Amino acid sequence: MKLEVRQPVRTRGRLITFEGGEGVGKSTQVKRLASGLREQGVDVLETREPGGSPGAEAIRTLLLDPDLKGWPPMAEALLHFAARSDHMVRVIEPALAAGTWVLCDRFTDSTMAYQGVTQGLGTSIIEQLSALTLKGRRPDLTIVLDLDPEVGLRRVATRGEDRNRYELMDLEFHRRLREAYLMIVRSDPARCVVVDASYSVDDVEEQISALVSGRLEARLAG
Amino acid sequence: MKLEVRQPVRTRGRLITFEGGEGVGKSTQVKRLASGLREQGVDVLETREPGGSPGAEAIRTLLLDPDLKGWPPMAEALLHFAARSDHMVRVIEPALAAGTWVLCDRFTDSTMAYQGVTQGLGTSIIEQLSALTLKGRRPDLTIVLDLDPEVGLRRVATRGEDRNRYELMDLEFHRRLREAYLMIVRSDPARCVVVDASYSVDDVEEQISALVSGRLEARLAG
Repeated sequence: MKLEVRQPVRTRGRLITFEGGEGVGKSTQVKRLASGLREQGVDVLETREPGGSPGAEAIRTLLLDPDLKGWPPMAEALLHFAARSDHMVRVIEPALAAGTWVLCDRFTDSTMAYQGVTQGLGTSIIEQLSALTLKGRRPDLTIVLDLDPEVGLRRVATRGEDRNRYELMDLEFHRRLREAYLMIVRSDPARCVVVDASYSVDDVEEQISALVSGRLEARLAG
Repeated sequence: MKLEVRQPVRTRGRLITFEGGEGVGKSTQVKRLASGLREQGVDVLETREPGGSPGAEAIRTLLLDPDLKGWPPMAEALLHFAARSDHMVRVIEPALAAGTWVLCDRFTDSTMAYQGVTQGLGTSIIEQLSALTLKGRRPDLTIVLDLDPEVGLRRVATRGEDRNRYELMDLEFHRRLREAYLMIVRSDPARCVVVDASYSVDDVEEQISALVSGRLEARLAG
């Protein structure tokens, strides 16, 4: 007698990262896309960087600790990759393996744009740290929300929260940051796509939804 | 008229690191050598890793936090190098530039022996992280205190302190750790020297003192 074993076919989830400067609407759009995917029956995990796992959230606290008066750029980049490594191993990879789609507010491109380019550490160091830490694993899709930094910073100011140290940097810093993101998109157009974040939240959501369906050929029910 | 300016000639300090497994006597010998050098009129800074600067000490707390239930090996290695980068930039480099001799209890060789070899992350990853973080700066002398791990662990047990997670590992772990340190010495004999730590504290101090005088050609007064 032949025993037949049927293994459940489980498709690996997708990793979608959201990038862009301050006030472009990343966390809002993560929530919107997560709702949209869930309505289609997709398992979704919403997460963020730096953070997303207990260890990485503890590192986030260190990165933002005002008592430490900031970090040298290399130490800061290493802390971001330490947090990312913990987040990948403990949260993202297990979720993807279980078929869950992971939507992450910021990822490696933020370290490249902030520490690598705008703070002057250099793109090569970030690329090498990324290769060592992620071993070739990368997002399936990266959505870069693009906005005039004057508009973004005005949005941040009206949030009524305490502003973080990046939000307090001058406009020139934020202009360089925007250019850094656009450079990243040009260097990896197969993974990254720019979305104009000057439109309404609903319009941006619709653009992202169309992109996700088109780019990831999501076979969504309904 | 010619103006003559005399700049004070200040010799760069030396970085001496102490390495070895648990209970070999590193912190005792750091203190002993520091006293000996100070008696000769040398400015000395005693420090340790992970730690040695406010930021690096905060990272040390994360590394040892029992609530986080340990770190994946790559995240742990990145945290050690983040701490080392902060320690170098904020404390070690300024001290060396000011002519101070820096004695450090553990340094990169510990990350190599513990995370690279004994915990299986691989020597190549540690070498690459070291190259990126330290950019070729290295200790002038590394003293590896060598001891049968059974003796070392017995010493640790009689200290009466809570044991850390490495001290709680089995004897086989500590044997592999000892071998890892001996491998490091063989691979870099110009920098590293083994000292037999089974002798009395006074005898070990004397050996180290002779080594430092000989190897660093310390022109010590008196």
